[in-house]
Amino acid sequence: MLKDWNRMEQPSDEEMESRLKKAKERLQQQQILIMQKKLPVLVLLEGWGAAGKGSVLGKIIKNIDPRFFKVAVMDEPTKEEKRKPFLYRHFVKIPEAGKFVFMDSGWLSEVTKQKVLGELSDEDYKKRIESIKRFERQLTDNGYLLLKFFLQIDEQEHAKRLEKLLSDDNTKWRVSKYDMWQSRHYNKSMDIYEQYLCDTNQSSSPWYIIDAGSKKWAHLQVLEMLVQGIDTALMNSALAVPLLQNAFPLKQIEKLSEVKLDKTMTDKEYDTALDKYQKRLNELHNEIYRKKIPVIIAYEGWDAAGKGGNIKRITEALDPRGYEVHPIASPEPHEKARHYLWRFWNRLPKTGHVAIFDRTWYGRVMVERLEGFCSENEWQRAYVEINEFEKELADWGAVIVKFWVHIDKDTQLARFKERENTPEKRWKITDEDWRNREKWDLYEEAVNEMLKKTNTAYAPWHILESNDKKYARIKALKTVIEAIEEKLDKH
Amino acid sequence: MLKDWNRMEQPSDEEMESRLKKAKERLQQQQILIMQKKLPVLVLLEGWGAAGKGSVLGKIIKNIDPRFFKVAVMDEPTKEEKRKPFLYRHFVKIPEAGKFVFMDSGWLSEVTKQKVLGELSDEDYKKRIESIKRFERQLTDNGYLLLKFFLQIDEQEHAKRLEKLLSDDNTKWRVSKYDMWQSRHYNKSMDIYEQYLCDTNQSSSPWYIIDAGSKKWAHLQVLEMLVQGIDTALMNSALAVPLLQNAFPLKQIEKLSEVKLDKTMTDKEYDTALDKYQKRLNELHNEIYRKKIPVIIAYEGWDAAGKGGNIKRITEALDPRGYEVHPIASPEPHEKARHYLWRFWNRLPKTGHVAIFDRTWYGRVMVERLEGFCSENEWQRAYVEINEFEKELADWGAVIVKFWVHIDKDTQLARFKERENTPEKRWKITDEDWRNREKWDLYEEAVNEMLKKTNTAYAPWHILESNDKKYARIKALKTVIEAIEEKLDKH
Repeated sequence: MLKDWNRMEQPSDEEMESRLKKAKERLQQQQILIMQKKLPVLVLLEGWGAAGKGSVLGKIIKNIDPRFFKVAVMDEPTKEEKRKPFLYRHFVKIPEAGKFVFMDSGWLSEVTKQKVLGELSDEDYKKRIESIKRFERQLTDNGYLLLKFFLQIDEQEHAKRLEKLLSDDNTKWRVSKYDMWQSRHYNKSMDIYEQYLCDTNQSSSPWYIIDAGSKKWAHLQVLEMLVQGIDTALMNSALAVPLLQNAFPLKQIEKLSEVKLDKTMTDKEYDTALDKYQKRLNELHNEIYRKKIPVIIAYEGWDAAGKGGNIKRITEALDPRGYEVHPIASPEPHEKARHYLWRFWNRLPKTGHVAIFDRTWYGRVMVERLEGFCSENEWQRAYVEINEFEKELADWGAVIVKFWVHIDKDTQLARFKERENTPEKRWKITDEDWRNREKWDLYEEAVNEMLKKTNTAYAPWHILESNDKKYARIKALKTVIEAIEEKLDKH
Repeated sequence: MLKDWNRMEQPSDEEMESRLKKAKERLQQQQILIMQKKLPVLVLLEGWGAAGKGSVLGKIIKNIDPRFFKVAVMDEPTKEEKRKPFLYRHFVKIPEAGKFVFMDSGWLSEVTKQKVLGELSDEDYKKRIESIKRFERQLTDNGYLLLKFFLQIDEQEHAKRLEKLLSDDNTKWRVSKYDMWQSRHYNKSMDIYEQYLCDTNQSSSPWYIIDAGSKKWAHLQVLEMLVQGIDTALMNSALAVPLLQNAFPLKQIEKLSEVKLDKTMTDKEYDTALDKYQKRLNELHNEIYRKKIPVIIAYEGWDAAGKGGNIKRITEALDPRGYEVHPIASPEPHEKARHYLWRFWNRLPKTGHVAIFDRTWYGRVMVERLEGFCSENEWQRAYVEINEFEKELADWGAVIVKFWVHIDKDTQLARFKERENTPEKRWKITDEDWRNREKWDLYEEAVNEMLKKTNTAYAPWHILESNDKKYARIKALKTVIEAIEEKLDKH
């Protein structure tokens, strides 16, 4: 890409001026169209230090209403960010529908720097590339326009610019140690960039190599590509995306109708087991805290299946300073305006902590599917997207436990009635619960499909037979304990 | 408080068991009432290291549905948090309406530690105390139940507990250097705690000193106070709060009707001035970045007064990596569920950065007042609350510039019509704009009152005469430049 790159000839100043004017005018019109069509635009400015990313960025955004864009400067990850998956700090900065985000350096800079300094093994580098490709594809599949620019300058120019910055007291602080390192190892850095650009050059989000030898010329190239990219995206919006085959190992799982719900437990068995397993889980919580292993527990299940009580038996065993429960309701406007997984990326635990989700990202293939909150293409695509999301978490080192809390229809009816007849429980039952109940069969079909398509080896489902809540609680505790123990053994 | 503290006699085990049972049952009922009455409850657990805060916390929350509370563990401020005002990391963690937040150590620990280690001058300590008292009063005035517990153990017990923790490899990591320091300087630490407790013992949020010599007894005391506090709060909800006198120096400001709107500027004067002042602002932006001075620019004004274009002339002069524009619309559900200033605390810039607010916290005394989104008592209280908020920002070292972008009624009409007749501008005009226009006189009254009551010396208003937008833009640039220069002179 960089090596066999055909540098375009720089036009005359006059021609550049006239082309700049035209592109700027178009960008000003486009910002309104973007807003109206709710197109999210993510512009990634990568390249050598001192290649002029900040300067190009500064010029581009002058044409956009400041209310329509954000600039994200991706410095070194903070201590907190290092305790999240690699993609976290990038994912949480994606734009809202109808707005721009400009990123001054992003995941290219982070990965190539780690690679060039020997902080990433070949294997980990490959994993990063896979993560990035999936991340970028998920964005474009979900209607994001992703434009990736690499600002290229040659060895001489790179050295010259650093020297100039260093010679002025007002600018020398802008030259980092890494810039200097790159200057001494220009060819090695170039090889790594080249490799990265080839590895991540996807048809839905190709790289644009920008000749950054002249500032005005760099500005014009980026601006024209941006304008052209937006025009194309505005025409293409709302096309269905081809469905991908699942690429992850799936385990067999029974259908809900095959699950035997007659399992029970006496009060005495329950008390003994509860005490035993809560103690064990408490010990393990200390251990994962010290070993900095993150744990994610996802609860889905029928209304009134006993999710709340089940979660409580887990949290009772945990140190309150090391876990968080996230009740998931319908998304708020700023959440709805982004990729549907965004709000879950935002709620990931730190390493060593436990996050419990009371309802989850699987809403996409259940309530959103059945209520028509997303298109068929969207929910059909979601199985693979969710497997990819959970793969990210698993690769990060997380223990992932997913529960379907299961009851039969009669048990649900009995519990609904009990809730209605018990004053302290009445807040738990709403009209929506009754409406959902009418769609039981449709839900059952959706759940079966979900279980089948997302029961990956690294993030398996566990069905909790909850006609007897006591039985389900003990099974949940045992399942979480086993999953953590398995991880600790491997650790 | 600690010194003349009358330690209650510890009841018998039997009595404690029966009282614990009763209190737990009540807390379980209360959580539903809290949810229904939308009462936010903030419980602060402070006290000596190893006094058992974590253990009490763990026991209390076992009685609450995990979906109804969050636990906030306030470790040392992170690097990022240190670049925000002192109260920031505490304020952003306040609970939503209807939920609990339990804080494991909070602002007491932070301030007393800095004080005892000599990191806070007497003067700064006094400022902190003032900030804290205002913060706590604002919470309780705005319907928060704030319960503050201090877990007390004597010198011997403190030393004994640390020793026990240190003797076990599994627990010794929990003893910090500061714990050891406190152990060697128990009396000095005690004096500082004593002073702090006296300084912040307000009638609306008094301190409860808890005898933490025995864990069960500590648990019972906290639980009973909590239950009692909640019962009281549930009865008291929705009372009007006495209005406070403004305590900050106010400057005179003219009424809107006295503002002369005939100021204009030729295109040529404008171009020259724009160039000159943008260059200057750009230089200053570099300087505040290096000196880590935060800048907050607040825009309010009539619809179609030209806020957007005015903001653009400011941002054009700034390095895009050092500023953010926050368009403020009506609050989202998670914002509405908290103190109305919460969403602005959440959007404060880091030191050295610029935050521009396109509409602001003054919505409380304009749109929320006039549309009845808050009670009369609430908006009347808001003038002082806002002055306090801005005082916090000013004490932190921020440059604060507040603009009222002003036009007359005829100019607004002309601009509304132009927007309707120009296809690219039509998105800017909505039915709401027309409805607001009908309430011009009511708004004018509200704005006059706002200007008068919040024109503090440390955060003054500036009226931008914007019948001629060019004039207003240059005045805005000049005003921001002057405010920054003034701060730099003092710096």
